[in-house]
Amino acid sequence: IGSSSAETDSQTEWTDVQKKIIPWKNSTSSLDLEMVFQDRAAKLGKSNSRLIVVASLIDKPTNLGGLCRTSEIFGASALVVGSLHYIQDKQFQHLSVSAEQWLPLVEVKPSQLVDYLQQKKTEGYTIIGVEQTAKSFDLTEYCFPEKSLLLLGNEHEGIPANLIHHLDVCVEIPQQGIIRSLNVHVSGALLIWEYTRQQVIKQKQ
Amino acid sequence: IGSSSAETDSQTEWTDVQKKIIPWKNSTSSLDLEMVFQDRAAKLGKSNSRLIVVASLIDKPTNLGGLCRTSEIFGASALVVGSLHYIQDKQFQHLSVSAEQWLPLVEVKPSQLVDYLQQKKTEGYTIIGVEQTAKSFDLTEYCFPEKSLLLLGNEHEGIPANLIHHLDVCVEIPQQGIIRSLNVHVSGALLIWEYTRQQVIKQKQ
Repeated sequence: IGSSSAETDSQTEWTDVQKKIIPWKNSTSSLDLEMVFQDRAAKLGKSNSRLIVVASLIDKPTNLGGLCRTSEIFGASALVVGSLHYIQDKQFQHLSVSAEQWLPLVEVKPSQLVDYLQQKKTEGYTIIGVEQTAKSFDLTEYCFPEKSLLLLGNEHEGIPANLIHHLDVCVEIPQQGIIRSLNVHVSGALLIWEYTRQQVIKQKQ
Repeated sequence: IGSSSAETDSQTEWTDVQKKIIPWKNSTSSLDLEMVFQDRAAKLGKSNSRLIVVASLIDKPTNLGGLCRTSEIFGASALVVGSLHYIQDKQFQHLSVSAEQWLPLVEVKPSQLVDYLQQKKTEGYTIIGVEQTAKSFDLTEYCFPEKSLLLLGNEHEGIPANLIHHLDVCVEIPQQGIIRSLNVHVSGALLIWEYTRQQVIKQKQ
């Protein structure tokens, strides 16, 4: 429990790491990503989920590192970050416990997000914002599509208004306490879990 | 989203804080705790849950601070810590965003845990260990009793063998990745959420 580092068994692993870090620049990168999915699914000995976690709006390396660990553990297909430079950050690495070696990381700058979300829509993904709005679905009532893309908000400003228009749906976590809101890593983890739980239950039916 | 600090509106709040920090020493403390529950339920304008989160085995102030925030937000009735000194820790405070002012905190040292768990059993709580064992229930299949006590393991050693015997049940989070395990704050958050989700669904039925 807690600290764990995935072992690398040969030099070829480093090539894998290189392959897994993908700047999103043009439509060919989607093909690369598909290859990485297949590769990872083969390693895990089962099919990957079709969950993409988009953390481009998140600023804190600790939150990104934590999300990297949590996304990897639940078999998300990719974590999207605003800059690949975060991977070099000590705090990121401390929290990610080397998950970045196994989870495909994609760089999509905040300014590229509208284009990225549009493209994922054309690929059949439902774009889900994790945000409290007047029209948000309650997480206890939302049924995740198989191809789900979670867009997480910034630690302070959430999801900016210009991006809200590009979402298919907003989902919020019902909160009972006096403190206003959950940490963004925890919010993300709860949606990743809820997606996973629903997929597990569907597979059993 | 993210940073938030609950406002204190008068000097009487400090008295509340004092009341909410309770060292667990003898059976009368349970009465105090019950009073605090009622007080908090009144403030929140609804009934509290009967979920106790026991984090006495956790060492890192960041994990404890995070659990404090998450437990408060989901209306847990108390967070049990190994030492109340953690509340003074800067890292704890940074992560808890003042949730410790609203959530009852109880001190139970690791050496007192067996006695504490026994007493909570006599009060009708089901003692649930968050741990991977051969007999653990899968979190997707476990149905939480209304009176649930979650015992979280240490970051490195999990739940020691001598305490496993005092649990009613172990629950584990199914994990698909290559990295071995979730951060203990995230594990705790997922069980707190799952308890909450089930309670919400029950209340709607």
